[in-house]
Amino acid sequence: MKKVRIGTGACLVAGLAATLCAAGAVRANEGMWTYNHPPQELMQQLYGFTPTQAWLDHLRLSSVSPGASAAFVSPDGLILTNHHVARGMISRVSTPEHNYVRDGFTAASRDQEIPLPGNTVHVLVSIEDITARVQGAVRAGLDPAAARKAREAQIAAIEAECAKKTGLRGEVVALYGGARYDLYRYKEYTDIRLVCSPEQQAAYFGGDYDNFCYPRHDLDFSFLRAYENGKPARVSDYLKINPEGIKDGEMVIVSGNPGRTDRLRTLAYIDYQRETFPDRVARTRHQLELVRSYMARGAEQRRRGLTLDNGLSNTLKRSEGEFAALQQPELRVKKAAEEKALRDAVAADPKLQAQYGAAWDHSAAAYDWARAHEKDRLYRREMPGSRFFSTTVLSLVRYQAEVAKPDKDRLPSYHESNLPDVLRRLQSPAPVYKDLEEVMAADSFQRLLDGLGPEDPLVVAVLQGKTPAEAAKFYLDGTKLDDVAVRQALLKDKGKAIAKSDDPLIALARRVDPLLRETDKAWRDNVDALEDDAGTQIALARFAVYGDKAYPDATGTLRFGFGKVTGYPEATTLVPPFTTFLGLYDRALSFGDSGDFALAPAEREHRGDVDLNGVLNFACTADITAGNSGSPLGDREGRFVGVAFDGNVESHANRFVYSETRARCVCLDVRAILQALTKLYHAQSVADEMLAAAAQGGGAAPAAAAATATGAAATGATAK
Amino acid sequence: MKKVRIGTGACLVAGLAATLCAAGAVRANEGMWTYNHPPQELMQQLYGFTPTQAWLDHLRLSSVSPGASAAFVSPDGLILTNHHVARGMISRVSTPEHNYVRDGFTAASRDQEIPLPGNTVHVLVSIEDITARVQGAVRAGLDPAAARKAREAQIAAIEAECAKKTGLRGEVVALYGGARYDLYRYKEYTDIRLVCSPEQQAAYFGGDYDNFCYPRHDLDFSFLRAYENGKPARVSDYLKINPEGIKDGEMVIVSGNPGRTDRLRTLAYIDYQRETFPDRVARTRHQLELVRSYMARGAEQRRRGLTLDNGLSNTLKRSEGEFAALQQPELRVKKAAEEKALRDAVAADPKLQAQYGAAWDHSAAAYDWARAHEKDRLYRREMPGSRFFSTTVLSLVRYQAEVAKPDKDRLPSYHESNLPDVLRRLQSPAPVYKDLEEVMAADSFQRLLDGLGPEDPLVVAVLQGKTPAEAAKFYLDGTKLDDVAVRQALLKDKGKAIAKSDDPLIALARRVDPLLRETDKAWRDNVDALEDDAGTQIALARFAVYGDKAYPDATGTLRFGFGKVTGYPEATTLVPPFTTFLGLYDRALSFGDSGDFALAPAEREHRGDVDLNGVLNFACTADITAGNSGSPLGDREGRFVGVAFDGNVESHANRFVYSETRARCVCLDVRAILQALTKLYHAQSVADEMLAAAAQGGGAAPAAAAATATGAAATGATAK
Repeated sequence: MKKVRIGTGACLVAGLAATLCAAGAVRANEGMWTYNHPPQELMQQLYGFTPTQAWLDHLRLSSVSPGASAAFVSPDGLILTNHHVARGMISRVSTPEHNYVRDGFTAASRDQEIPLPGNTVHVLVSIEDITARVQGAVRAGLDPAAARKAREAQIAAIEAECAKKTGLRGEVVALYGGARYDLYRYKEYTDIRLVCSPEQQAAYFGGDYDNFCYPRHDLDFSFLRAYENGKPARVSDYLKINPEGIKDGEMVIVSGNPGRTDRLRTLAYIDYQRETFPDRVARTRHQLELVRSYMARGAEQRRRGLTLDNGLSNTLKRSEGEFAALQQPELRVKKAAEEKALRDAVAADPKLQAQYGAAWDHSAAAYDWARAHEKDRLYRREMPGSRFFSTTVLSLVRYQAEVAKPDKDRLPSYHESNLPDVLRRLQSPAPVYKDLEEVMAADSFQRLLDGLGPEDPLVVAVLQGKTPAEAAKFYLDGTKLDDVAVRQALLKDKGKAIAKSDDPLIALARRVDPLLRETDKAWRDNVDALEDDAGTQIALARFAVYGDKAYPDATGTLRFGFGKVTGYPEATTLVPPFTTFLGLYDRALSFGDSGDFALAPAEREHRGDVDLNGVLNFACTADITAGNSGSPLGDREGRFVGVAFDGNVESHANRFVYSETRARCVCLDVRAILQALTKLYHAQSVADEMLAAAAQGGGAAPAAAAATATGAAATGATAK
Repeated sequence: MKKVRIGTGACLVAGLAATLCAAGAVRANEGMWTYNHPPQELMQQLYGFTPTQAWLDHLRLSSVSPGASAAFVSPDGLILTNHHVARGMISRVSTPEHNYVRDGFTAASRDQEIPLPGNTVHVLVSIEDITARVQGAVRAGLDPAAARKAREAQIAAIEAECAKKTGLRGEVVALYGGARYDLYRYKEYTDIRLVCSPEQQAAYFGGDYDNFCYPRHDLDFSFLRAYENGKPARVSDYLKINPEGIKDGEMVIVSGNPGRTDRLRTLAYIDYQRETFPDRVARTRHQLELVRSYMARGAEQRRRGLTLDNGLSNTLKRSEGEFAALQQPELRVKKAAEEKALRDAVAADPKLQAQYGAAWDHSAAAYDWARAHEKDRLYRREMPGSRFFSTTVLSLVRYQAEVAKPDKDRLPSYHESNLPDVLRRLQSPAPVYKDLEEVMAADSFQRLLDGLGPEDPLVVAVLQGKTPAEAAKFYLDGTKLDDVAVRQALLKDKGKAIAKSDDPLIALARRVDPLLRETDKAWRDNVDALEDDAGTQIALARFAVYGDKAYPDATGTLRFGFGKVTGYPEATTLVPPFTTFLGLYDRALSFGDSGDFALAPAEREHRGDVDLNGVLNFACTADITAGNSGSPLGDREGRFVGVAFDGNVESHANRFVYSETRARCVCLDVRAILQALTKLYHAQSVADEMLAAAAQGGGAAPAAAAATATGAAATGATAK
């Protein structure tokens, strides 16, 4: 599983609010719950455990978001996440001489911890329900596109006000497709350093083969540290580790940032997804082949391409799994039955029918429009070229154009509240490999030419009479934007130099920007706005029919869930809840200790020191998805027992429907982390820091109101 | 996988002769080849290896048939097979005080080896093509039923003549559905003793869950010894072990007795199977539930029922797998295409069309008849009661009736040549557990009553006015046939006392025998005879169109095959070629070392002595099926490198179509056997005996004509 980078700023998720099953009941262990609406009755019923407000606040404040998920595990800002979450950061500070991704890294002392510039993490310090304020901004009678614009302006104002008043970054989160809006306030840490990470081969043992598989044998962890004012950040909330770990059948709580689920969407959306998935899958596969052929050129190319390879491989495997789930007839039958039950209930009540009855048809209309404009989605919704073109070059040009406007008129990503993120991204010191960029750009241009033809204005703007390969070479040879100092200079004075720059890449972005904006606006007005509107209507209908106990679809923001440690049936046998170090060495030797199944050097060298019986990974039923990578797993005392790093193959369907029969969250056990630190990676001090923190009085989880059903359930985190 | 007991005597297999694919080409590594028609060109082409006649003779003469498969591994008659092949034998000499199945057994010295009375093994000493003699017995113009009867009489005469002339047991084997008949001559060993066997828990680690699965971690071996004249048999052909084992990617040869495949059958047969499988599966499942509820009564019941439980579990899992294969639309599409290609080729040649064109319709007519008489198949083709009722009680009555007739007029199983087997079975000293028999009998009677109704003559004959439970109690309380001495007394003077016996079970058998014979004859005449006839026609058509290079369907007789050691893809990852002892301990601990995944006491106690890196099991592409359990695997020098004990889940489809993509033969590695003997089971002497034998000059595999394509390929074993 791979971290998902969720667009910062207003998280405009068009998920439709509805409970998952027709009866409105949530299945056991299901749910990505918001911290201000915890399912306390359900947890009490399943596990005899009712988390108090203090217990939940502590878990929330210990949860760290580095893009994906993580947790504080000591009062000195020590952060534990997955290796694959930190991999990109580590890669950007690696060089051919110091290949920390391949070789791992352990800081000999705190002053040896490696700064990871351009990276931030944040902590969710408070949540406020602002539904009335957001919806109040929309005058009655506005069409969906205009209503959306009004909401966006109001959201931008609320976020700006938050920053001004509290110094905290504000994010307005649209839940249930817009039936509820919450303001999330974040404390940000902008000085992040690398403390310890294992070899990639140990973290990613089994490679792409074993990704999304279980049983598993991966040491997928990294330790980072948040700094403030040049010193380790002092944090009052962190998770104490439980060095004894968790047992089969026991409850675990998971806290993290699930990126996206589509469980409450309309059937029209599901059908549209199923139709358009093959294009997405084919494109990812093609890009992966391209990167691999680049990497085959030599060792340095292999190093440069590895992060992209891992990312694309991961996306491809996930997409294939999700597509397979979409193709299962049972999924559609189930979704159709759920939708019919709700529509029938609405139709049976004239008042509900008058208010919400048309929503499903509006959603269908949105996707009919999308189908008719499918070619635009394929070719005109992103900056041609590589990821660097899209995320940095186009963004430079847009930054300059947008900051000149009043906040309410800007593109959502360029609202004042989001500018710190934008500026950090634009000034990232991460290396740009021009040779790799050129390969990706030439391919992207060729695709555009093949898809749209030579006369298309976008193609003309990109190629300017050249072949795709010539154009790619022209742009990459000529640009100086790979130099971060050049970008920093351009950004001065609200980027006014950008408008006059003759950098060929900036010139390209200036040419294509108006064309992309046009397409994008058409999609936002004709699909997103309708879908938002329908989503809100259907969510309200669902509240009216079933009540509002269900959790909203994932939005890339902090949630918690729960489940239990357990194996599952597969084919005709059983898959065990745990794996051990014995299994790691078995799997390596079974494949001749080679290729993706080779042991990492530390695993090979220090095998004699390791307790082979020790638990390595485990499986649990907690409801997670991409973005949860790095999520801490807590026991009922709130102690850290492991970190989520993947789902099994069966969990791909979780995007659309949760199942606990065979879908599992795959975790690295705390006991394995301790063995790895002390026996493989010369990082006794990191282990000691966590153990000492666990023994301290501070930072402990407040006792949960265990085994006592509470009528006066805590009401969730409130604004602070 | 479970040994399959093939009816001894004329092996009337109705398999249709045909090559597997429409082009007539055999796929790589596919085939259960007869020793007199080795695929030398194919082996040369695939592996640069052409076995000489001497090489093949040696492998054949080293192969031992104890019901399933086995091999001699020392000149002193030491036999290596699976634990689960020997389990029934071991169970029958076990008692509550000496539970050799549960606890394992190692003879401290040769005179401590435990006799296993009633068990025999045989070795195939020669093969003779007698097609002309068998077919010459059928006058032109006979209808299929009469032709079949004439063939059976001729076969009985040939088998009797063989015994008389050579002292060897003769078996006429019908190949390609009767397009070829070979006479197999066997040397028999009737004094078999138990040398060493591990604990059932080590042999069957993972239990029914892991059965038919891979990766696997089972020590599924047993050592027996053949005796002659009270002394270890001296054998000149045995397999020398290769203590280094086999490597990934290397060729292996397998020799054993595959029980049954249906690869050359008509589409009509396949369709009929698919329709009738659910009944078979449901019945096995029901019987298994019954045995388990009996076993739940206590420890002694558990011990008594274990062999039956293991057998039924195995049958159930295999049947479910085969049924799943039959339901795959691809299988039928493929079979239909193959059949159409052959029919089209026949139709294109007027001469072939006149000779063979009607055969497929005859086959279809056979199964139409079967469908119309399905109820008879379900209820009237076996003696009601338990396995003891069918195999012993009914057989006593039939023995007495049949031996009074001229040989040619007898039921096939009672021909003179088969009588030694019949008499051995009837006088088996294996314990009969009356309480378990009563449970099975009552259930069988109830099923008959429910299925046929109280007025049916068979039901009347069985129940005699009692309830099923009363009847079962009446028969079991009253019978003395569980005492082997009683059976021996009855069998004297060609069983004349049987006709007068008032034992209630014998009386029951006398009542039902005529009814069962009637049904059986109708099926033999209307299904088996037609299918035989059609099978022969189609085989000859196939020879005419594609040539005669293909192997015949399995017939429970000795075959050899080849393949290579290799893993395979599963879901989105890879399954390794080998497993190690590390994997055994991992899987046990992953499940908390409990239940079906508990370590055997010896594995737990002696773990420190075991080389955990040592190979345990491996997977290879050799083409096997039920009945191959215990088959030796040889390397290209003919040295023993492992023993087959199972197929993976994907191999269930092999009954109908071989695939090497994912179907695998699962083997226990010779290195694991050596570790088990020397480190777990105090059986250094057994290891030493094999190692010493391997070092000796005698018994060696003659060098194969490796890497030299030979035009003058050896012509196969000839009559001796």
